[in-house]
Amino acid sequence: MGMNMTEKILAKHAGLESVVPGQLINCKLDMVLANDITAPPSIKEFEKIGKPVFDNTKIALVPDHFTPNKDIKTADLAKAVRTFAKQHKIVNYFEVGRMGIEHVILPEKGLVAPGMLTIGADSHTCTYGALGGFSTGVGTTDLGVALATGEAWFKVPETIQVNLTGRRPEGINGKDVILTLIGKIGVDGARYQALEFTGEGLSSLSMADRFTIANMAIEAGGKNGIFPVDEKTREYIKDRVTKPYEIVVSDADAQYVRTVEINLSRLKPVVAFPHLPGNTKQVADIGEIKIDQVVIGSCTNGRLEDLKNAADILKGHQVHKDVRCIVIPGSQQVYLDAMKLGYIEIFIHAGAAVSTPTCGPCMGGHMGILAAGERCVSTTNRNFRGRMGHVDSEVYLAGPHVAAASAILGRIATPEEVQ
Amino acid sequence: MGMNMTEKILAKHAGLESVVPGQLINCKLDMVLANDITAPPSIKEFEKIGKPVFDNTKIALVPDHFTPNKDIKTADLAKAVRTFAKQHKIVNYFEVGRMGIEHVILPEKGLVAPGMLTIGADSHTCTYGALGGFSTGVGTTDLGVALATGEAWFKVPETIQVNLTGRRPEGINGKDVILTLIGKIGVDGARYQALEFTGEGLSSLSMADRFTIANMAIEAGGKNGIFPVDEKTREYIKDRVTKPYEIVVSDADAQYVRTVEINLSRLKPVVAFPHLPGNTKQVADIGEIKIDQVVIGSCTNGRLEDLKNAADILKGHQVHKDVRCIVIPGSQQVYLDAMKLGYIEIFIHAGAAVSTPTCGPCMGGHMGILAAGERCVSTTNRNFRGRMGHVDSEVYLAGPHVAAASAILGRIATPEEVQ
Repeated sequence: MGMNMTEKILAKHAGLESVVPGQLINCKLDMVLANDITAPPSIKEFEKIGKPVFDNTKIALVPDHFTPNKDIKTADLAKAVRTFAKQHKIVNYFEVGRMGIEHVILPEKGLVAPGMLTIGADSHTCTYGALGGFSTGVGTTDLGVALATGEAWFKVPETIQVNLTGRRPEGINGKDVILTLIGKIGVDGARYQALEFTGEGLSSLSMADRFTIANMAIEAGGKNGIFPVDEKTREYIKDRVTKPYEIVVSDADAQYVRTVEINLSRLKPVVAFPHLPGNTKQVADIGEIKIDQVVIGSCTNGRLEDLKNAADILKGHQVHKDVRCIVIPGSQQVYLDAMKLGYIEIFIHAGAAVSTPTCGPCMGGHMGILAAGERCVSTTNRNFRGRMGHVDSEVYLAGPHVAAASAILGRIATPEEVQ
Repeated sequence: MGMNMTEKILAKHAGLESVVPGQLINCKLDMVLANDITAPPSIKEFEKIGKPVFDNTKIALVPDHFTPNKDIKTADLAKAVRTFAKQHKIVNYFEVGRMGIEHVILPEKGLVAPGMLTIGADSHTCTYGALGGFSTGVGTTDLGVALATGEAWFKVPETIQVNLTGRRPEGINGKDVILTLIGKIGVDGARYQALEFTGEGLSSLSMADRFTIANMAIEAGGKNGIFPVDEKTREYIKDRVTKPYEIVVSDADAQYVRTVEINLSRLKPVVAFPHLPGNTKQVADIGEIKIDQVVIGSCTNGRLEDLKNAADILKGHQVHKDVRCIVIPGSQQVYLDAMKLGYIEIFIHAGAAVSTPTCGPCMGGHMGILAAGERCVSTTNRNFRGRMGHVDSEVYLAGPHVAAASAILGRIATPEEVQ
């Protein structure tokens, strides 16, 4: 019986010929990630074991959530990560000013690659599936053990095939794809299952689209999201990945628990209403919803193409007087590239605040927390109640195109509404 | 008997022919300022009076301390300011993305001018003395009353003449001047006194130098700091100030309580040690003091020339691996200009984090708070114990040139030490 990509990667890392869904396996890990929230408790678990780190080149530590630090408590968290990194000579420690959001910089720096198995103490670690690897979020206990052993247990997930047909039209991007999918299958529609994206539609998706889509696999409950490797993937990793890697392809007779079809050519700009990423509606259908803030950035949509999408719409326009628009490049490299391409200038001319790379307000960290009663259109990944601030605030998830249009018009809007 | 600049401005605004030090007077105000920390309590005082605002064009509200908001509490503060601004149609309300640090943008936008009387619920309101006006910080009760009445009581201060001789050498800037002065007279050396800067040395000070110097008059206990208007002042205000203004000149027989002499040509790069701005030492004399963080920005040193001074040193260098260097442009305009001139690119290439304009970590707000035991070289204005974070952290005040050199070398350093 054939295996799909997820099964093949897990089998290989478990040293097995084959695996089947439901099987419990122990895998060797290629990359182990933690951030300034999750590393400190992981380190505590690690220290109980009393061993050195398994491999100081296979650990990435990224203090991105509360940096530059917003208060003494978060300064202590970052200090704990910094101290650990120095003590254990962690090669891939990314300091303030030389960093970015974890899920933006690990691909950018070539630390994740096709066929690799990555865990991270952050639920959006599933992002790297965009490159044809298996990656998933774990808790801090598992992460702490992995720091010492380089291994982790998994239950092999069932896999849902998401078959993409048609071509992604102009003005539609990865966020519309994943929000439409989650709207269709629900926030528990892929619970502990892999989402494997297949089909002729793939070729019309940019790498930024794929990162956005894989990033939000967890928002459908997915264990991971995974894309086959194609020319675009190869082009992306060409000058980034220096270690050997293996491109994994699903067998023709691979097994899927079910198939979901999405016709890309029929997609419209969508927005996920509070308080679930699956409350997806077409923007054209929602009527007038006034907003107070727009956030463009995050591990979901903080890449160069995302900023381009937003800049193309904001160019020559002003952010609505009643809206704060906060733009957060996903990494120093994205920031630099966006500056050279003139996007940052467009944002500042438009009246947006451009932050240094950080997770920012996404999970209520800093850089744009909402007061009671405030509404935000955000390119982030979750709109759970109170996630970006007060329990009585509201977050509407959308892509950078809808976010930018909404910033200009002061209400949730489609890009077409911007003249 | 002649009057000095401070006395003349106060007399005119009190509707009096003349005033003498110690006299209690009631003055009409030209500009009334508050920020996101001080506006909310001021508004409460204002509302007790039950009158409308005295003049919606003479009030500036700048939410700069905790914006983009770092938490729900600060989001509530900003919301209170925003709501008030809307309700009272405050013309000079500066929203996130369209703003900057209060003491950077009020001069930049032409809202303060020679001869004007400005109060602000922020101690560094004395900054505008650089333009030949009288400006000073007040408490929130006074500010609240001023919002309704447009008036405030003052005790006319005695004036210290600070006579500047020589020329400011290359590599020395306003921060060296003011830290040297405070080191000389002490942090209470000008308590409730005016500091009037005079002398041939003035012409070698840029406007950025003067803003930095006037900004820190309060750090010597000064009621205000004031500069005569010259060609540089006129050039600065030419395209900014649109209202009529009056240039005030001290009489030849004006009275000063004492004169302090500073020979600019003999100044060296200095740093103020913890925990007082008057603990001034020459950088060349201090030996090796390792640092964890550098902050370049604030109302003291967040102007374009300050960023140029830092960029000139950082160009082609890397921030030391053990240092976080955080650069915060003082306004959106400074950010934009610094970007066009290539400074932001230099900072990012060097491995510095470039933030959106905000007061940031200066008074422990956000964007770089220190953990216990950490040391920071900062271009801000105060190094009181715990001001930038943990009570066991240390802040060393310096100009942008020393800050940049220190960022590169990982210890407090003179610019000459950078090869």
